[in-house]
Amino acid sequence: MAKKSFPLSKVYCLLEPGPVVLVTTTRKGQANIMAMSWYTMMEFEPPTVGCIISNRNYTFDILKVTKECAINIPTVELAEKVVACGNTSGQGVDKFRTFGLTPAPASRVAAPLIAECYANLECAVMDTRMVNKYNFFILEVLKAWIDPSRKDPRTIHHLGRGAFMVAGEVIKLPSKMK
Amino acid sequence: MAKKSFPLSKVYCLLEPGPVVLVTTTRKGQANIMAMSWYTMMEFEPPTVGCIISNRNYTFDILKVTKECAINIPTVELAEKVVACGNTSGQGVDKFRTFGLTPAPASRVAAPLIAECYANLECAVMDTRMVNKYNFFILEVLKAWIDPSRKDPRTIHHLGRGAFMVAGEVIKLPSKMK
Repeated sequence: MAKKSFPLSKVYCLLEPGPVVLVTTTRKGQANIMAMSWYTMMEFEPPTVGCIISNRNYTFDILKVTKECAINIPTVELAEKVVACGNTSGQGVDKFRTFGLTPAPASRVAAPLIAECYANLECAVMDTRMVNKYNFFILEVLKAWIDPSRKDPRTIHHLGRGAFMVAGEVIKLPSKMK
Repeated sequence: MAKKSFPLSKVYCLLEPGPVVLVTTTRKGQANIMAMSWYTMMEFEPPTVGCIISNRNYTFDILKVTKECAINIPTVELAEKVVACGNTSGQGVDKFRTFGLTPAPASRVAAPLIAECYANLECAVMDTRMVNKYNFFILEVLKAWIDPSRKDPRTIHHLGRGAFMVAGEVIKLPSKMK
């Protein structure tokens, strides 16, 4: 399914509910994938995302050097591959090939997008001042993509130790909140 | 229902899936409640939470002065009250009384807990260096409480403009992740 461009002003709608995401990076022709749940929106526009990427992860070293990544949002159909990515270090392993995921070119960053994910956010590191103390990177989303055919995507939300809550029904209330 | 103490080492299991939470504060005998979705776990132990609290919110001023708050986790039964809290400023309004929520004493902070929420986290502000630029507070969870009778709590997850995803089924996979 061809993805279409997604408005940057609505990126918060994708990340605010807290799905597990897959962070892709690349360096010297080798791409990597990391599962991540510890992140938050920080600003609506430009969409700004703060995230914890442990210095024990291979992605930490790549991100410090290349200063760019993509955030890919999987749904429950990909849950086993998400766990496989989380269980493995990318050092010396091609996770795309090993776990049967398809790299797709991004438009603004060198990191590949994951074709199977219903949404993809191309990101640049914009602030590293909290990296040394907290492993906390601040990213700006430069470009967003979405699969327009996916309504109410069944994202997965980590509850710890391999338990995931799968997104359920959607309710609407008269909120003035953005 | 009497709540029981909840291990600090498991607090991430409550916040990592990304539920909307209610932040309570108090100053000069007046308590306030704010709805919040922009936060992330930052460390397992002591449990550390980073959160965006806009300087347009009344809670921002209280938190800067008192340096403590509670994070209360509601379920879908409280969704209308959560939205009501989000739609209203606490300046001059007693949200507990107005919206029919019950304040309960905390053990480590002056901020009241919300009795109707299934879990409550008592927090102290531990780092304000990112407040001026990003409205980003870093909190340490000092004490956690949970209602032991609530299994698979149906938390709500904000999708923007009053749409909320309600927590669905739970699946288990052989993850090595904590």
